[in-house]
Amino acid sequence: MSTRQLKLNLFVYPGGHHEAAWRHPESHPDRVLDISFYQDLARSAEAAKLDAVFFADGPSLADNIRYASRFRLEPFTWLSAIAVATERIGLIGTASTTYLEPYNAARLFASLDHLSKGRAGWNIVTTGAPDAAYNFGLDAHPVHAERYDRAREFVDVVTDLWDSWEDDALVADRASGVFADADRIHRIDHVGRHFRVRGPLNTPRTAQGRPVYVQAGSSEDGRSFAATYAEAIFTAHQTIESAQEFYTDIKRRAAELGRKPEHVLVLPGISPFIGSTETEARALQDEFNELTQPAYSIDLLRRLLGVDLTGHDLDGPFPRGLIELQGDRVNSSRSQLVVDIVEREAPTIRQLLHRLAGARGHWTVAGTPEQIADRITEWFTQGAADGFNVMPPWLPGGLDAFVEHVLPILRARGLFRHDYTGTTLREHYGLTRPDSSFSTTHVDTPVPRERHPA
Amino acid sequence: MSTRQLKLNLFVYPGGHHEAAWRHPESHPDRVLDISFYQDLARSAEAAKLDAVFFADGPSLADNIRYASRFRLEPFTWLSAIAVATERIGLIGTASTTYLEPYNAARLFASLDHLSKGRAGWNIVTTGAPDAAYNFGLDAHPVHAERYDRAREFVDVVTDLWDSWEDDALVADRASGVFADADRIHRIDHVGRHFRVRGPLNTPRTAQGRPVYVQAGSSEDGRSFAATYAEAIFTAHQTIESAQEFYTDIKRRAAELGRKPEHVLVLPGISPFIGSTETEARALQDEFNELTQPAYSIDLLRRLLGVDLTGHDLDGPFPRGLIELQGDRVNSSRSQLVVDIVEREAPTIRQLLHRLAGARGHWTVAGTPEQIADRITEWFTQGAADGFNVMPPWLPGGLDAFVEHVLPILRARGLFRHDYTGTTLREHYGLTRPDSSFSTTHVDTPVPRERHPA
Repeated sequence: MSTRQLKLNLFVYPGGHHEAAWRHPESHPDRVLDISFYQDLARSAEAAKLDAVFFADGPSLADNIRYASRFRLEPFTWLSAIAVATERIGLIGTASTTYLEPYNAARLFASLDHLSKGRAGWNIVTTGAPDAAYNFGLDAHPVHAERYDRAREFVDVVTDLWDSWEDDALVADRASGVFADADRIHRIDHVGRHFRVRGPLNTPRTAQGRPVYVQAGSSEDGRSFAATYAEAIFTAHQTIESAQEFYTDIKRRAAELGRKPEHVLVLPGISPFIGSTETEARALQDEFNELTQPAYSIDLLRRLLGVDLTGHDLDGPFPRGLIELQGDRVNSSRSQLVVDIVEREAPTIRQLLHRLAGARGHWTVAGTPEQIADRITEWFTQGAADGFNVMPPWLPGGLDAFVEHVLPILRARGLFRHDYTGTTLREHYGLTRPDSSFSTTHVDTPVPRERHPA
Repeated sequence: MSTRQLKLNLFVYPGGHHEAAWRHPESHPDRVLDISFYQDLARSAEAAKLDAVFFADGPSLADNIRYASRFRLEPFTWLSAIAVATERIGLIGTASTTYLEPYNAARLFASLDHLSKGRAGWNIVTTGAPDAAYNFGLDAHPVHAERYDRAREFVDVVTDLWDSWEDDALVADRASGVFADADRIHRIDHVGRHFRVRGPLNTPRTAQGRPVYVQAGSSEDGRSFAATYAEAIFTAHQTIESAQEFYTDIKRRAAELGRKPEHVLVLPGISPFIGSTETEARALQDEFNELTQPAYSIDLLRRLLGVDLTGHDLDGPFPRGLIELQGDRVNSSRSQLVVDIVEREAPTIRQLLHRLAGARGHWTVAGTPEQIADRITEWFTQGAADGFNVMPPWLPGGLDAFVEHVLPILRARGLFRHDYTGTTLREHYGLTRPDSSFSTTHVDTPVPRERHPA
C-alpha cells in the first residue's frame, strides 16, 4: 500500500477503560487476573491486524482501588505471555525511568524483543503518581524537570546497552569453538549525572536492534523529550484543534532535530461507544456513566486539580475558582486538559465526572460506526493524528464492536491495512531498523555517536 | 502416596550445562534464543512430572562468552512465556536482592504466580559475580556479609508486599460498587537499614499467597539465611559425605528456628551422563570433555581460586600452592568446593578442568541408568538430599535420556510420582500455603509477625 496508513493500537486495561466497566453486565471482573483473557484480546487485535497492544504501568497502587479495577498488570510478564500466544502484533510495555535501573530495563525489553522475534516497544514514562516514591525509599517524588533529566540519560544508557552486542556477534562456530566474537561485544563505559553503567548487556542484540521508543506525556518537558527520542507518542486530546497544535509542534521539533517527521508517530487516545444510531450509542455511554461512583472521580479531580469537591452539589456548576495548580500539576498535561474542559464547557460537577469516567481524560466519542470512522478520518487527514491508541470502554465487547463495525469502513477508505506486510513492530510502524552505534560497518553513523551531550 | 518422594527440577541452561555442549552435534546452538526451544523443554519436564523448571540469572555478562553459551535468559520474561505453555510444572526464577528494588521484585514474582496460577518460585541470590556492580553505579560489589544483610531485609519487605492484600480483598461486587475491600489492603510502612517501602503492592494476593522461597549458596552466611527463609535449597556437592554434612546442618538450623525440617528441602545439583554401559557413559562424557577449551576453565579457576594457570602444562599436577583465597573467595562455598577437589584428588590441571566443565562444580556422574538411580536413591535415603536439581549436560538430549531411562527406575522403587497430585509448586514440594500476616482471621499467626528483628 503506498498511501499513508493509520496506526492503531489496542490499549489494554483490566476490565476496560471506563471506570465503571467492571460493574457492567457485559464485562468479566472474574477474568481480570486470568492471562487467557488478555491473550484472547491480543489474538482478536491481531486478527484485526492492529499494530500493537499497549500496557500502561506504574509502581504503586491507586488510592481509588475501592471503586474501580485499578490494580496493575506487570507489563513484562503479561506481555511475554501474550507474545507466545500471537505472531505478528506489536507488544508495547510501559517502564519507568524513575523507578527502574537502566541495566534491568534494557534486559527486560531485549528479552521481550527476543521472545517475540521483534515486536517489543517501550513506552518510556517518568511516572506521574507521586506515591511511587514511597515504595522506593524516597522522601518525595522527584520534580518534573529532574525526572526528565534522568529519563534522557536513562534512555541513552539503555540504547547503548542494546547496541553493545553488534548484530553478528553471536557466532556459534562449532569448528573453531568461538561462541561469540568478543571483538563485537562492547562495554559502554557510561558515566553520567544519574548513572554509571559499564556493560555490555548480557544478551545478544535483538531482532529489532532496538525495541520501538514510545512516549506518553505532552508537557513542555514531555514534548522536548518526545521530539528527541520517541518514535510513537501517545497523547490525550479532547478536540481536533488541540491535537493539531500538538501534532504540528511535535513534527516541527523533530524536524529541527534532524529527524524525519514520519518517524515520529502521533497517536491520540480514543475511547469509542458505538451504536447503530447516535441515540443508541449515547444511551450506551449513559448506561456506563450511570454505574460510576462519584467518590472515585472526585478523588481523581483532587489529584489532578487540587480541588476537594466533597459535599458539593454534583448537579451544580464546577467551582472553577477552587482549582489550584501547584507543584507538579503546573507541568502536567493531563491536569491542563481537565482545566481546558472546564474553561471550554463550563460543565456541572457530574458532567465533568462523566467526561473523565470514559478514559481518564482521553477523547471519548459516542456515535455510529460511520460517525466514528469520520472523526478518525478527519483527525488522520487534517494533521491531528497518524493513528490512535484505541481504548475500549469495556473489554472484550468494546474492542469487538470497533473491529466489527468501524475497521471495515476505514479499510474501505484505504486507510488501514488488510493484512500485515511486515513481522516486526518497526515494520508495522514504518520505522527503520537502527544499526548498532558500535558497529564499524554500518552506513548511517560511521563513527559511534557522541554520547550523552550536555 | 505416603512414602517420602523425590523432588526433581530441571535446571535450564542455554544449550546445556556442560560448557562445551553447544559444540556437540546433538545440541542446537541455533535455538538458544528461540523461546519454543525452552517451552519444549518445559513441556518435556512436565510430561515427566518433574516439580519445576529452574532458571539461573545474573545482571552481567560472563567474560568467557567467547568460548561458551554463557549469555543470560532474563528469567521473568522467559518463565512467563513458559508458564502459558504448561499447566502444572513449577517455575523458579532467580532474582538478585543486591541489584533489584524489592517493590519491583515483589511485582514480578506476584505476576508470575498469577499468570501460572500458583507455580512461581523465587531463587533468592545476592549475586556472586562482582562485575555486576559496575552495571549499577557501584564502585565495587558489596561484600558477602553486607549482601546477606540486605538480602534478609529485602525478603522481609517482599513478603510483606505479597501479604499486603489479604486473600479476599478483591471483592468485585457489582451491586455495591465495591471492587476491592480497602480495609483488607495494607500499607507495610517498612523502614529499615536498606529500604523504606510503604506499599501496598499494586496487585492482588496470588494463588500461592507467597511464591516458594528458594535459595542457592552454602557459605556460612548462606546457610544461616537458608535456614531462616528457604523452602528449597540448591546446593553443590561432589561427595555424599559433603552433602550429608550440609543436609544435617541445614535441617538442624531450621529446627532450632522453630521450622519443620521437611519444609526446608535440600536439592543438590546432579549432571548425569547416561549410557547403556558404564564404559559407554564415560565415553560420552569424554566426547564432551574433548570439546572443551582450556582457556575457558582457566578463566573460571582464576576467578574461583585466584590462580593464573596460563603457560602451565595441562597434564602436570595442579599447583596447589598457587591457590589464594582472598576477599569474597574466603566465603564462597563454590571456591571451597574446588579446593576440596584439589585436596582430595590431587588432579592434573586438565583433570580438574574436565571436572568443572560438566556443571561448574556440581556433581557430574557417568553411568548406566541403574547406576545413576542407585546414586540418587543412596543420597535420597542416606540423609544427603530431598531431591535434585537435574542439570543435563546438553539439551534436550540429556534431559530426554534421564526421563526415558532413569525416572522409570525411580518410579518402580516408589520414589517419584507417577502424576501430579497438586496444581501449585507449594503442593508439589509438600509445603503449606502461608496466610497473609495482615489477616486477622488466620490461625497460624494470630497477630502480625514481628517484622525485621535486629
